[in-house]
Amino acid sequence: MFSFHLHCADRRARLGLLSTPHGDIRTPVFMPVGTQATVKGVPPRDLTDLGASIILSNTYHLYLRPGDELIARRGGLHRFMNWPGPILTDSGGFQVFSLSEMRTIDDDGATFKSHLDGSLHRMTPEKSIRVQHNLGADIIMCFDECPPPGDREYNEIALRRTHAWAARCQETHLRAGAASRQALFGIVQGGAFADLREQSARFITALDFPGYAIGGLAVGESKDVTLRVIEQMDALLPEDKPRYLMGVGEPTDLLHGVARGVDMFDCVLPTRLARHAAAFTRDGRINLRGKIYAEDDAPIDPECDCYTCRAFTRAYIRHLLHVGEMLGLYLMSLHNLRFLLRLMEDIRAAIAERRYAGFMADWLARYTAARPQV
Amino acid sequence: MFSFHLHCADRRARLGLLSTPHGDIRTPVFMPVGTQATVKGVPPRDLTDLGASIILSNTYHLYLRPGDELIARRGGLHRFMNWPGPILTDSGGFQVFSLSEMRTIDDDGATFKSHLDGSLHRMTPEKSIRVQHNLGADIIMCFDECPPPGDREYNEIALRRTHAWAARCQETHLRAGAASRQALFGIVQGGAFADLREQSARFITALDFPGYAIGGLAVGESKDVTLRVIEQMDALLPEDKPRYLMGVGEPTDLLHGVARGVDMFDCVLPTRLARHAAAFTRDGRINLRGKIYAEDDAPIDPECDCYTCRAFTRAYIRHLLHVGEMLGLYLMSLHNLRFLLRLMEDIRAAIAERRYAGFMADWLARYTAARPQV
Repeated sequence: MFSFHLHCADRRARLGLLSTPHGDIRTPVFMPVGTQATVKGVPPRDLTDLGASIILSNTYHLYLRPGDELIARRGGLHRFMNWPGPILTDSGGFQVFSLSEMRTIDDDGATFKSHLDGSLHRMTPEKSIRVQHNLGADIIMCFDECPPPGDREYNEIALRRTHAWAARCQETHLRAGAASRQALFGIVQGGAFADLREQSARFITALDFPGYAIGGLAVGESKDVTLRVIEQMDALLPEDKPRYLMGVGEPTDLLHGVARGVDMFDCVLPTRLARHAAAFTRDGRINLRGKIYAEDDAPIDPECDCYTCRAFTRAYIRHLLHVGEMLGLYLMSLHNLRFLLRLMEDIRAAIAERRYAGFMADWLARYTAARPQV
Repeated sequence: MFSFHLHCADRRARLGLLSTPHGDIRTPVFMPVGTQATVKGVPPRDLTDLGASIILSNTYHLYLRPGDELIARRGGLHRFMNWPGPILTDSGGFQVFSLSEMRTIDDDGATFKSHLDGSLHRMTPEKSIRVQHNLGADIIMCFDECPPPGDREYNEIALRRTHAWAARCQETHLRAGAASRQALFGIVQGGAFADLREQSARFITALDFPGYAIGGLAVGESKDVTLRVIEQMDALLPEDKPRYLMGVGEPTDLLHGVARGVDMFDCVLPTRLARHAAAFTRDGRINLRGKIYAEDDAPIDPECDCYTCRAFTRAYIRHLLHVGEMLGLYLMSLHNLRFLLRLMEDIRAAIAERRYAGFMADWLARYTAARPQV
């Protein structure tokens, strides 16, 4: 039910096919995030049109509302949200450490207060896996601890726990007999520290997961650290397993990640930017609230093939955003998602034709060229 | 460019075809409202799928933001919002009297403060028509005054003005040579008073407009008054012109209106109800916030053919509404719009087959039957 095949590589960039119970995923892939069982504002039929082949959802949020058991009784997350394709759920680890109001961590797990109503909850590796079994995603993640990347002492303590928890997640998963339906990925942590990262990669890969995530790198550390860690992982992670860089979705980061052997990415950026009136274009980001767009009859990005860019002008979308109309958010979300999904399509084509380095250089030169700020 | 043909009648219910520069409209018709150049949350491609054949937009709102001249420079409202079908704009009269913060009315027009920023504006019959020329809708409306239906004295004063303004609107419209591109409808006022209504109908029809609206009836008066006025209008308005009952959209009101010879309706109800989690079903309205829907795997309305009902359960939509996800609003809006548009399809079929009275009785019996309140 689950397999990964590398078709070809262009230097370190890899072209692959990830097969799951709900369909195949061509890699490198960008996964839109549907935190609360919906990619914000975008119905599943549009996600299919946009070219999304897998989406991500959040264990922490769904566990709290509407509850993983309720979703299980509905037939699982795919049926509940009517998304027929593959889904990946994160473990809730990141959210427990970043969203919950109060948390105490011990070697067994984490106790936290819900950010919604202050209610007290307990999450352990075993519980996270059981919740993810209830949700039924094609790919599920180990429960881990995400310390600030620069805190050496905390990273050492957290890494011991993350490793022990990974083993417990795997054991829970295997014992439940769920490995044929859901692939459990391991997560490498270790912050900004090369020795901890190496130690983590060796430990986690020794457990032999069907895929590996690089965690803790989208939380404020410098781009240099991110690139250095990804390069290190490229050397340490097995070639024949998918590599997933968690929480990364800036176009430049996607390009650099692919160049260093990353196969999977996820990020809330496309829909979050939409809520701030910001849109990707081939020539960099623009903010549609700008007065200069009030009478601009061009589409957001003249080269984009999305519904928004085929049917609407910047002037109209600016009007919608200006007067607070929901349609503005929808159209912006469609565009930003399509922009990243199409970038991934172009990336895959470039790798297949062994011209990735040139493609990336050209793409970045134009995207990051100086332009009037608005 | 503009014509109205009555195909047949079933007692007083009428089946017609309204032809406009942007397409034909089968009547009786329900017109979704796109106040600010968008039917809230619903892109034009979906409106087409839902079966909308004409939409309404608002002179008052568009005059204030983004401005009718800006829209004219974009090529008019159809191009601006990318809706290829017919559009009707109201005159701004109702909004000036209901939304603006302060207003003074004289025989020449109304001075009002914008509800947005308190800025001072002047609207006259001539100005309303010029704004509506800039917007470029297929059907435009006379600028009128909308007093509370029960205030006799005010209605007498307002009616004199509304009649004088109707003549000035018509003159402005004809002088601009716009009558071949845009049809100007007259509006009958007179509140709850039969003699004033008759006087208004005689005056307005004597001006000979291509269509007639019945105004001032969706502002809190009793259903009895509404039905009585509509029946009176049925006798007084010319058979061969379309009749438009402004601001009415409850399913029961649509059915009663059609039975009394009304051809056109508009209302914000479908999208407004969506924002309050309320959905039409064949068995009456339900509110999806209700806990009883938390594990309800049925669609909102098992007999509905909309995307929402084909693809999603009450449990999922309740979850979306409960956690405040935008997709919930979108799916609810689609359903409520489709429900009314489909009701109109069924109404037209019933008239065509000369079985409207029975259809209406059956429909209402089921819709209004007692049921557990939630």
